[in-house]
Amino acid sequence: MKLLEDRIRRDGIVREGDVLKVDSFLNHQMDVAFFGEMAKEFERLYHGCGVNKILTIEASGIGVACVTAQCFGCPVVFAKKSKTKNIAGDVWTSKVQSYTHNRLYDIIVSKDFLGPGDRVLLIDDFLANGAALDGLIDIVRQSGATLVGAGICIEKAFQPGGDRLRSMGIRVESLARIRSMSVDNGIEFC
Amino acid sequence: MKLLEDRIRRDGIVREGDVLKVDSFLNHQMDVAFFGEMAKEFERLYHGCGVNKILTIEASGIGVACVTAQCFGCPVVFAKKSKTKNIAGDVWTSKVQSYTHNRLYDIIVSKDFLGPGDRVLLIDDFLANGAALDGLIDIVRQSGATLVGAGICIEKAFQPGGDRLRSMGIRVESLARIRSMSVDNGIEFC
Repeated sequence: MKLLEDRIRRDGIVREGDVLKVDSFLNHQMDVAFFGEMAKEFERLYHGCGVNKILTIEASGIGVACVTAQCFGCPVVFAKKSKTKNIAGDVWTSKVQSYTHNRLYDIIVSKDFLGPGDRVLLIDDFLANGAALDGLIDIVRQSGATLVGAGICIEKAFQPGGDRLRSMGIRVESLARIRSMSVDNGIEFC
Repeated sequence: MKLLEDRIRRDGIVREGDVLKVDSFLNHQMDVAFFGEMAKEFERLYHGCGVNKILTIEASGIGVACVTAQCFGCPVVFAKKSKTKNIAGDVWTSKVQSYTHNRLYDIIVSKDFLGPGDRVLLIDDFLANGAALDGLIDIVRQSGATLVGAGICIEKAFQPGGDRLRSMGIRVESLARIRSMSVDNGIEFC
């Protein structure tokens, strides 16, 4: 998606350690008008696939997921990162390795909101190692829902997550795929 | 807002310990079409106030904040609950007592995204003791931005946060205000 690549070139900042800062529009400050453009593209890509639920994970995926859900006319469910007393009853659960925070955490989704009748599109802001998607996919499978695919804003294609998931037969659509990036040479897209 | 009161009566579940479960439409599964109705009401209430930034806190406020920001034509900034390596540089920071999780945590907002030029509307899904709003208000004041007010979906008016904030001169608009609730007698609105 050229619009996103242009925005990353303009506003993205590459830092040591394969960090791409896009917090001016994507995952700290959120340009919701721009989210609308990304959402339309996700809807175009998955048009006619019968998506009736968007699944994401807190926190930075929620904004894009909500705007995308408007285009699909369906609700969002976001997986929570720890059990709170406000979620009672049975939950689907999986584990996710966070490379950003360097820890393992549980994610949970209430069984009330995901089941065999659902056709699920996963939405997230970033795909690198694919750990968050692995957890969400595990939860979709446990629930008996149908996984339609994943819609990602920015894929770090030089990290293994995207190719690994595609080799498992999972449809992964990334609006911008970064082939390489460095502080000195900037960003190259696939 | 009658639409929200009706929805709470229909789908809300009261649990012991002053817990109101509205996770079927508000803060786990998210009914984004319904969020659009709440967003229009926030825009009506704060119309003409020059709001140019929505500030919320991760995670469950983000969805309503994003849909509300569409109505105002402005970006969202969400305060993060811990420092990650993806946020470099200087940040505004405050502390929030979570009664749900029974712990104290830091919230941070990058100085890049909040400053004297901003007229800020705070958005959150719940107001009870007001601890999250206290932290956000502290950050707005540090930044030199102007606090326009707060837009809350559900206020537990039997807890002290809303009245305390209003007595400080802060405009707080809550779409549904719960006067009392109990497992046996259900929910009474103000």
